[in-house]
Amino acid sequence: MSQLQYLVEHIQEKQSFLCVGLDTDPTKIPTHLNDFSQPVLEFNKQIIDATRAFCVAYKPNLAFYESMGSEGWDILKSTVDYIGPHHLKIADAKRGDIGNTADQYAKTFFKDLGFDAITIAPYMGRDSIQPFLEYKDKWTIVLGLTSNPGFEDFQLRKISPNDRYLFEEVIETVAQWGTAGQLMFVVGATRTEYLQRIRSIIPEHFLLVPGVGSQGGDLKETFQKGANDHVGLLINSSRGIIYAASDESFADAAALEASRLNDEMKKLIIQW
Amino acid sequence: MSQLQYLVEHIQEKQSFLCVGLDTDPTKIPTHLNDFSQPVLEFNKQIIDATRAFCVAYKPNLAFYESMGSEGWDILKSTVDYIGPHHLKIADAKRGDIGNTADQYAKTFFKDLGFDAITIAPYMGRDSIQPFLEYKDKWTIVLGLTSNPGFEDFQLRKISPNDRYLFEEVIETVAQWGTAGQLMFVVGATRTEYLQRIRSIIPEHFLLVPGVGSQGGDLKETFQKGANDHVGLLINSSRGIIYAASDESFADAAALEASRLNDEMKKLIIQW
Repeated sequence: MSQLQYLVEHIQEKQSFLCVGLDTDPTKIPTHLNDFSQPVLEFNKQIIDATRAFCVAYKPNLAFYESMGSEGWDILKSTVDYIGPHHLKIADAKRGDIGNTADQYAKTFFKDLGFDAITIAPYMGRDSIQPFLEYKDKWTIVLGLTSNPGFEDFQLRKISPNDRYLFEEVIETVAQWGTAGQLMFVVGATRTEYLQRIRSIIPEHFLLVPGVGSQGGDLKETFQKGANDHVGLLINSSRGIIYAASDESFADAAALEASRLNDEMKKLIIQW
Repeated sequence: MSQLQYLVEHIQEKQSFLCVGLDTDPTKIPTHLNDFSQPVLEFNKQIIDATRAFCVAYKPNLAFYESMGSEGWDILKSTVDYIGPHHLKIADAKRGDIGNTADQYAKTFFKDLGFDAITIAPYMGRDSIQPFLEYKDKWTIVLGLTSNPGFEDFQLRKISPNDRYLFEEVIETVAQWGTAGQLMFVVGATRTEYLQRIRSIIPEHFLLVPGVGSQGGDLKETFQKGANDHVGLLINSSRGIIYAASDESFADAAALEASRLNDEMKKLIIQW
């Protein structure tokens, strides 16, 4: 079964297209976890066990693991191993460099760490993305239209001669370099006014959608404007789930929030 | 003394604006180093000792250290410590993410690892760059026009209504967010035809210039088109120096190549 088929079936089975963002900040985890030798890993394990039934993907954010130095790197690897084979494991790394460097990143994230997918910045062009696409059974997820306030600075520049936005040119160009079975795009949930334009460019591709929750994006609107016939969306929530409570009940609170989002997704899929 | 004054004086003192790129690939270092407990660190130390007199900066490329997992992270930290306070230590990391994530990266690279500078990708806009600029006594080095073949894909798109290149808009916009005492731009040595346009936008800023050597860029042409009255250039060479020889003479060969580049720079500065 191809990785695309697997993902589509996993979404159908769970009626969920939720991705849980593991942006685990050592300074924000409940203090009772300090009794464990690796508090962040214990936090992640409990979050994963609590949310596994409600999501199809996990997305550790590299910045938070790098902030812990070499131990963070071990915790990241252990976290990926703990997630296991059923869920999509996305490295939110936003890498992008010249060919020989991109080769190294691809090897590190896909082979050594065992991720299924990685996020990539497009500014440096094709040879910075190609080494990831060489791994046909992995996902390369390229930044299209991001959820942060700074998206306007460059992504909304208009390109001559057709006055299309830079993000449209990026998505259309990159989509020619790989198939919908190996490429996804990041499109922020805070940018729903552009989702239909994006769907007209890439009707088949999956979109990884951050920005629901803490950043204010709306799940229903994102689905209605962005879903395709196999859903085609992975909606990420990080802080809204993993920090749903800050005391000993954190895992229960995370389960509750993930379950609530899953219920919302079920309704949307049934009505679709 | 400001970090800008220090850099300018260091360049004058050595008559060198050379940056040595520490893209140390564990599979490419001389086999006799395998007797050491950390061969890559030993390689870096010998390269640093051999080239210290001829350069003003070192630039470890994160991809190569991440490829070694948690040990690579320790080797990176030890390498930065070994370089010491006199040379500029640049993390070639090309990070770029939303504000709270960028905060983490800035802390990791500037505070925990002790780098003086980091390279940043601009696609996500201001709030992805601002957290680095908060560190006024550190350098933020933003990708402008890169040295790789893929630079054409997006950096050369023309922006309405003035038909300027995207890279020009990026450089001009980002230059408004910080001073020439804390911001630099990456401009590839393989793109000298655009250097004068770039200098007309940012006459004062330092440019970090990769692409001399393995990638085919020309030092003299880069200097003549890109230097300003305080030189304003850091020319990086990685593979051309660190892999100048692949046997036990590697450090001597690296010294020779760095010295040769330093001599070429001396001539250019004297004639300037």
